[in-house]
Amino acid sequence: MSAKRKQTLGVCYYPEHWPRERWETDARMMAEAGITHVRIGEFAWSRIEPEPGRYDWDWLDDAIEVLHGYGLGVVLGTPTATPPKWLVDSMPDMLAVGADGKVRGFGSRRHYCFSHEGYRRECARIVTELAKRYGRHPALAAWQTDNEYGCHDTVESYSKAALEGFRNWLAQKYQSPDALNRAWGNVFWSMEYRSFDEVELPNLTVTEPNPAHAMDFQRYSSDQVVAFNRIQTEIIRAHSPGVPIAHNFMGRFVAFDHFAVSRDLDIASWDSYPIGFLDRDTDDEENKLRYLGVGDPDNQALHHDLYRSCGQVRNGEIEGRWWVMEQQPGPVNWAPWNPAPFPGAVRLWAWEAFAAGAEVVSYFRWRQPPFAQEQMHEALLLPNAEPNEAYEACRQISAELARIGAVAAPERSDVALVFDYESAWAWNIQPQGRDFVYFDLVLRFYRALRQWGISIDVVPPEADAVSGRRLVIVPGLFSGTNMLVEALATGEAIVLLGPRTGSKTKDFQISEELPPGPFGRLIDLNIRRVESLPPFADVKLKDGGRFDGWREFLVPGTGTTVHRASIDGHEAHVSQGRVHYLGGRPDEETAKAIIGELLRESGITPLDLHRDIRVRDNGSLRFVFNYGPETVDVSAIANGAEVLFGEALLGPREVLALRR
Amino acid sequence: MSAKRKQTLGVCYYPEHWPRERWETDARMMAEAGITHVRIGEFAWSRIEPEPGRYDWDWLDDAIEVLHGYGLGVVLGTPTATPPKWLVDSMPDMLAVGADGKVRGFGSRRHYCFSHEGYRRECARIVTELAKRYGRHPALAAWQTDNEYGCHDTVESYSKAALEGFRNWLAQKYQSPDALNRAWGNVFWSMEYRSFDEVELPNLTVTEPNPAHAMDFQRYSSDQVVAFNRIQTEIIRAHSPGVPIAHNFMGRFVAFDHFAVSRDLDIASWDSYPIGFLDRDTDDEENKLRYLGVGDPDNQALHHDLYRSCGQVRNGEIEGRWWVMEQQPGPVNWAPWNPAPFPGAVRLWAWEAFAAGAEVVSYFRWRQPPFAQEQMHEALLLPNAEPNEAYEACRQISAELARIGAVAAPERSDVALVFDYESAWAWNIQPQGRDFVYFDLVLRFYRALRQWGISIDVVPPEADAVSGRRLVIVPGLFSGTNMLVEALATGEAIVLLGPRTGSKTKDFQISEELPPGPFGRLIDLNIRRVESLPPFADVKLKDGGRFDGWREFLVPGTGTTVHRASIDGHEAHVSQGRVHYLGGRPDEETAKAIIGELLRESGITPLDLHRDIRVRDNGSLRFVFNYGPETVDVSAIANGAEVLFGEALLGPREVLALRR
Amino acid sequence: MSAKRKQTLGVCYYPEHWPRERWETDARMMAEAGITHVRIGEFAWSRIEPEPGRYDWDWLDDAIEVLHGYGLGVVLGTPTATPPKWLVDSMPDMLAVGADGKVRGFGSRRHYCFSHEGYRRECARIVTELAKRYGRHPALAAWQTDNEYGCHDTVESYSKAALEGFRNWLAQKYQSPDALNRAWGNVFWSMEYRSFDEVELPNLTVTEPNPAHAMDFQRYSSDQVVAFNRIQTEIIRAHSPGVPIAHNFMGRFVAFDHFAVSRDLDIASWDSYPIGFLDRDTDDEENKLRYLGVGDPDNQALHHDLYRSCGQVRNGEIEGRWWVMEQQPGPVNWAPWNPAPFPGAVRLWAWEAFAAGAEVVSYFRWRQPPFAQEQMHEALLLPNAEPNEAYEACRQISAELARIGAVAAPERSDVALVFDYESAWAWNIQPQGRDFVYFDLVLRFYRALRQWGISIDVVPPEADAVSGRRLVIVPGLFSGTNMLVEALATGEAIVLLGPRTGSKTKDFQISEELPPGPFGRLIDLNIRRVESLPPFADVKLKDGGRFDGWREFLVPGTGTTVHRASIDGHEAHVSQGRVHYLGGRPDEETAKAIIGELLRESGITPLDLHRDIRVRDNGSLRFVFNYGPETVDVSAIANGAEVLFGEALLGPREVLALRR
Repeated sequence: MSAKRKQTLGVCYYPEHWPRERWETDARMMAEAGITHVRIGEFAWSRIEPEPGRYDWDWLDDAIEVLHGYGLGVVLGTPTATPPKWLVDSMPDMLAVGADGKVRGFGSRRHYCFSHEGYRRECARIVTELAKRYGRHPALAAWQTDNEYGCHDTVESYSKAALEGFRNWLAQKYQSPDALNRAWGNVFWSMEYRSFDEVELPNLTVTEPNPAHAMDFQRYSSDQVVAFNRIQTEIIRAHSPGVPIAHNFMGRFVAFDHFAVSRDLDIASWDSYPIGFLDRDTDDEENKLRYLGVGDPDNQALHHDLYRSCGQVRNGEIEGRWWVMEQQPGPVNWAPWNPAPFPGAVRLWAWEAFAAGAEVVSYFRWRQPPFAQEQMHEALLLPNAEPNEAYEACRQISAELARIGAVAAPERSDVALVFDYESAWAWNIQPQGRDFVYFDLVLRFYRALRQWGISIDVVPPEADAVSGRRLVIVPGLFSGTNMLVEALATGEAIVLLGPRTGSKTKDFQISEELPPGPFGRLIDLNIRRVESLPPFADVKLKDGGRFDGWREFLVPGTGTTVHRASIDGHEAHVSQGRVHYLGGRPDEETAKAIIGELLRESGITPLDLHRDIRVRDNGSLRFVFNYGPETVDVSAIANGAEVLFGEALLGPREVLALRR
Repeated sequence: MSAKRKQTLGVCYYPEHWPRERWETDARMMAEAGITHVRIGEFAWSRIEPEPGRYDWDWLDDAIEVLHGYGLGVVLGTPTATPPKWLVDSMPDMLAVGADGKVRGFGSRRHYCFSHEGYRRECARIVTELAKRYGRHPALAAWQTDNEYGCHDTVESYSKAALEGFRNWLAQKYQSPDALNRAWGNVFWSMEYRSFDEVELPNLTVTEPNPAHAMDFQRYSSDQVVAFNRIQTEIIRAHSPGVPIAHNFMGRFVAFDHFAVSRDLDIASWDSYPIGFLDRDTDDEENKLRYLGVGDPDNQALHHDLYRSCGQVRNGEIEGRWWVMEQQPGPVNWAPWNPAPFPGAVRLWAWEAFAAGAEVVSYFRWRQPPFAQEQMHEALLLPNAEPNEAYEACRQISAELARIGAVAAPERSDVALVFDYESAWAWNIQPQGRDFVYFDLVLRFYRALRQWGISIDVVPPEADAVSGRRLVIVPGLFSGTNMLVEALATGEAIVLLGPRTGSKTKDFQISEELPPGPFGRLIDLNIRRVESLPPFADVKLKDGGRFDGWREFLVPGTGTTVHRASIDGHEAHVSQGRVHYLGGRPDEETAKAIIGELLRESGITPLDLHRDIRVRDNGSLRFVFNYGPETVDVSAIANGAEVLFGEALLGPREVLALRR
Repeated sequence: MSAKRKQTLGVCYYPEHWPRERWETDARMMAEAGITHVRIGEFAWSRIEPEPGRYDWDWLDDAIEVLHGYGLGVVLGTPTATPPKWLVDSMPDMLAVGADGKVRGFGSRRHYCFSHEGYRRECARIVTELAKRYGRHPALAAWQTDNEYGCHDTVESYSKAALEGFRNWLAQKYQSPDALNRAWGNVFWSMEYRSFDEVELPNLTVTEPNPAHAMDFQRYSSDQVVAFNRIQTEIIRAHSPGVPIAHNFMGRFVAFDHFAVSRDLDIASWDSYPIGFLDRDTDDEENKLRYLGVGDPDNQALHHDLYRSCGQVRNGEIEGRWWVMEQQPGPVNWAPWNPAPFPGAVRLWAWEAFAAGAEVVSYFRWRQPPFAQEQMHEALLLPNAEPNEAYEACRQISAELARIGAVAAPERSDVALVFDYESAWAWNIQPQGRDFVYFDLVLRFYRALRQWGISIDVVPPEADAVSGRRLVIVPGLFSGTNMLVEALATGEAIVLLGPRTGSKTKDFQISEELPPGPFGRLIDLNIRRVESLPPFADVKLKDGGRFDGWREFLVPGTGTTVHRASIDGHEAHVSQGRVHYLGGRPDEETAKAIIGELLRESGITPLDLHRDIRVRDNGSLRFVFNYGPETVDVSAIANGAEVLFGEALLGPREVLALRR
């Protein structure tokens, strides 16, 4: 596969929602706006198979032909996120069961349990039919498996199928109940099992279950998503050779291992709704108001980098293949409040994605449906088929893409930030302080890097991923492997570890050598105590800055250097050689200061940016974004570079594209 | 029926709670305080029928005779809100099931499912027995069916009986599954049904159900309340000719269509607890403290006007027949906190009701019970039978009623404010912004009108109801009918529409012509986008004022006039001819300003009132109320009118009655 | 038993968690730190009986011998809080059912229903085996039954076993359904029962159940804890004569009657976690921050006094026998946030307990486990077996104990504060204002007494307990007995009653003579009205101070004196002779002022203490504690006394011990 793919626009389309006579017009209008990719089919099971075994392909044949007729590539979704009612009624135990013990019924979507063998067979059947029929169709640009695995908290199911599956999984993993008992520490509270059939699911216990029990159930549940997806990818590959397979992941969603699922995909993609997520990205009301109609300036970019990394897992290319499969075009319907995008925001979002190497930015959706759950979710067209604002934005973006000959070509960054799904599970299971959220911890460091103008790789905790960097940040990594430690030890990167990094073994036990466990090979210190702090308390540092919510009591060895200490007299930031350890959760100011120091130590020159300005380098291109409400003079950043579009007096939500 | 009925006091009484030897004293004391109506019997099933089929009428015969002996009219309640345990045990599936899937058991009250045919038969039986025995008793002043339909969220039941009933109801309504699928838009997410037996209740879905599904279930549930009530009213009418039938509705309760239930009643009544509702009526802490012991100055009045309108639905009289069936006499037991009424508040509440045309203001209850759930709910008498404060207030109020010869005679108001139960359901199902509450939206406009001294009719969205007015306010009306639009088009009233008015079809789809749908006939505009805003954001208007929580992006036609625009450059308030559209939720200041303009445009002279003062006109009488903590000089309002009681230097919680 | 027992340290130890080869070292290190008591065994059922009927005693024999070899006394816990999985699988209906109707499953601890006869038999069996084997072992210092009865809300179970038990209990108590109906007032809402078999548990009702129903279920549930415990104590006494029996109670836990359970014990003990409870003890953020790492200055002491009183219930000695069975040694894992103790706090806590007469202060736990639910709960040793801070504190404390020859010898205090479990249940069932919490009400008066330097007895509402005092405080006592009233009437103590004291009969009815019911014999007043107030409101008193949340409207007789009145003109604090009544919940300032006056009236000289300073007298010893962050000069308090340790310039979290 080429590392240089043209960057382009897409859209999500539901021909089954609209009269046949409209389809030609829709296709023409798509093409006119520069759209090249059209996702279809992913919720259409009841139209493809209206009764058990009776397929109705005519409409779908027709729709694909119409799109093909306008030169549009089809991204074909498998419809397994929405099994029809007749299928559910034929095996009601395919429904998932919530942690509260209640069956999660039909009437919306994602009403299935990943562990259910019967449902897996039904999915294999429908995917086989689809793949055989369309797998070699010339219009076919890509496949999408299912839709947003795990949406609405559906990764974990507490069903009978899941219980049986979990017991088998444990038997495979541990081989003997004694091994499981030892690994989990079940001697504690007499939780020992005599056989795998005695193990229950970790819900509805009197008080919290063993964290090792909860962790293995999360691993099991994640593995079922991987297995469920693989059933589909294997069928598709058999019947649709050479057509890449994608899945559309979500934002801030960590309940399964996206790197693991991505190994079976060709393209990682995600569904980007910057405004809808703002509420979860920051708890600072001033920021929420400032960015109300544009979203957190760093949250999308973090996801872009994370999913680009997912794309790399399989194909090993530098840039990975990744798309935005669903891009917000206007107000949505699902957040607590749903503001409209600020003027310019829709275009800014597209360029943030392209700048980060997205091949396709695909809007959700073509036309706002007047009915059902998403009728208040805007689209490129209004319900009455008139173009809405984002349709006009598409025209502008596709013209700009053409003008600069945009290709997906981000280079490997000097800076790697480690992201790990197991860590997210671990600290969700054992936050120890109510507001300790792994994703937010990572975002703090990501934000600090980006505030210094850095383009970042967000990578899994693997040796390959961290080697050859100049700066590696490893916050909150649940458990380290010898290979990772070795890679950090033998590389030349400046390394920042902590807080909580290396504090557990894979069995969710405290490391025998005390935290940071195997990372103690890199820096001579151990952590004997941690404390979590309520929001009204903090740990002030001697020379400014503070930790909030989390602080560790470090016992550094004699060869270490203390960079920061708390005003109550404890070491807060120490280093030995290239390796730093940070013993707390830094607030924004502190994170920025520390990252600035480490960048300089790494020989990387940070940019001095206005609070609203962000920069992304993509090959020889540099993009500058203004997330704020005021015009900012960014000519210092633009200095000497060719302006492709935009202006150095960068208006609110405006983009400046430069070639260096 | 006469349009002029004497206004009088009543009380709710439970003779079964007290020794027989006390009843005479109670009756005498009631009569002495000027009480003329006594409600009894509505929770007494276990005493009327202590065992299946064995009736014990003696005590009730006796109680009615005692009351009759003191000239008191009896309001006889049917006991169907509290079926005895033996009845529940005989058919346990009569219990309702909550949205959480749990059976709602015996041990308090309202433990029944409206859909259960067996329970309906049992109710028919006990009501028949009651009606045959007492239907023609000379003491009988009125009937009350059941008690507070829907209290404790009991309108909706997710039982097997409800599921079967709902499927039948859908089959009746839609005739074919395809028609239902089209109406609901079930092609979305493959939610299509092949038969009505595939439809489930809209609870326990993975994510939110189809709003059309939820809406139809709400309609179904409301219809069951109507049907349940009608069974009783038909029996009563057969056996008790000429005796009016009431039901006691509640405050801020919208889960069934009260207009529809009222069509089978002669008298609409409601249970007014001004203090207990304060917490829900305002989120302004300063106001909550100011009105802590008297309640929101507008909330009771809105309900009075709404239920007067319910009373009009059936009898077509101008004033309707309506009562306050339960009036708060002191602290209650059920609010999060239960403050005591401020001095004067009990009397003020009575006069607010009489001023709005109530025939009867009936206190809940006669004597505070020392036992069971409501032991902390005050009454006219203390638990030890001594008179409590409100008993003394009754004496004063009945003397004042006599002095002014009070009759129920409110005139049709020039101003109509439309209230619609389906709209309340719609925006509850699809708030789109977490704090969008239909009742509160209506209250904002009601408050603004009342702050200008207007006496208002709150009416259903029907042609008759809006015709012949000078000003009609239609906020947030889910869906319009052609007849309503026609009535507004052909009338001469100034009309204020919006926000959200006309935005949906009856099938809960977005109008094909875009919002405001059929109201587009009245004013040339459409709404292409809406946004909801969190509490920390708002939309500031150019010449002052603001929208909070909700804003629409209007595309007005060329013939329209822009009255207000936002500082970010969008039209906010436009008109064409007599018809205005407001594109957002106005804050208190803005609502007052707009309503003031519209009143003047309508040729109605607003009063300039102190913040704590409210005015109500009732025929030739005018009442002035001071809800505040300070004495206010209201002589400007009293100017020239005969003072019936009270003073122009109006003290805290005092009332001034004038004849003009 | 001697009233003078040496005071000493203990620790909780789990030999089954650690390799056999480590045990000797552990025992030696315990002894070296001055520890004399070691609790073991209480969660070890799966190790004692790994399969049904197969016992494995070897390891436990061994562990006891090792400890014995180092002179350590063993406190042997019965393992009934953690039945193994095989036992649960053999009778799954032994699991408790939550108020939400869900079975509370295996996977943590306390997964049993107190009412289940089968589980009681299994407990009797395992306790018999244990008691026979170790009951006369020379190392045996004490027994502990089960562990933390009720932890994780496990007192109440809504199982079939509980339903049957409750019906039998009601039949025993009331003898006839009519008697129950009368006592509960079931005529209300037709809740009457024809037989005990019609009674249900008070959960899952449509709205709140009858408070009398809820109260009897709480009494029933409490009785099951007593019965469950008694099964164990009777077996132990039979097989282990002369060895005292303890149970470890918890903080702020009131769901069963601890006085009643204690009647079957020799030693009351509790588990003291000062930091973990801070969040619940105060809602003042400034205080929470000030005491973040040391805990509320009065909460522990209140518990010490309460459980000392529990210890007195059975043995009738002045000082009672009581221990701290689990003392916090560092950050814990179970609070929302878990800060580290401030320097000095661990030692301060130990001395607060010893000063209050604790015989043993036992740390939880010896060594931090690397696995399972409590891996983040610190211990005396780190997971890697190195000594942690609290181990070092033990050395210092045991040296100090030895130096002063510490013995448990608190004298009977002149001041008694009444604490009653039924009152806690009553106001939990019927708070009437959302934030009315009985425990907090008692704490307000306790805090005020302690702020004046008083050492207090916290006593049950019994005649013996209040007689011979100089000041008795009775806040919020649900229901009074004639014997208690008589004791207060005939004593010479100054008495402070109210708010809510005497407001109900034992049947949860309002007293016929109105509140304060039987206490009306002591002071001529009644209460005709109460109000609860939201946090933003209050009742200001004329000469300063205020009530928050709760206020009563008093009607005092002519012989009374008014001490305080509200600015809105109501009596707030009245007295007649020695007896005072307070008609509201005083804020901290007001409580302190009132208690100061009453102390002086009682002839007790209060101490004028700095806000952070607390004092405890224990026989001839006086201890002074500084809970604050600054050094305080306490030489005025120390004046003339012999300094045993510490300094009059008392540093943060420091202790000063004096002999007078």
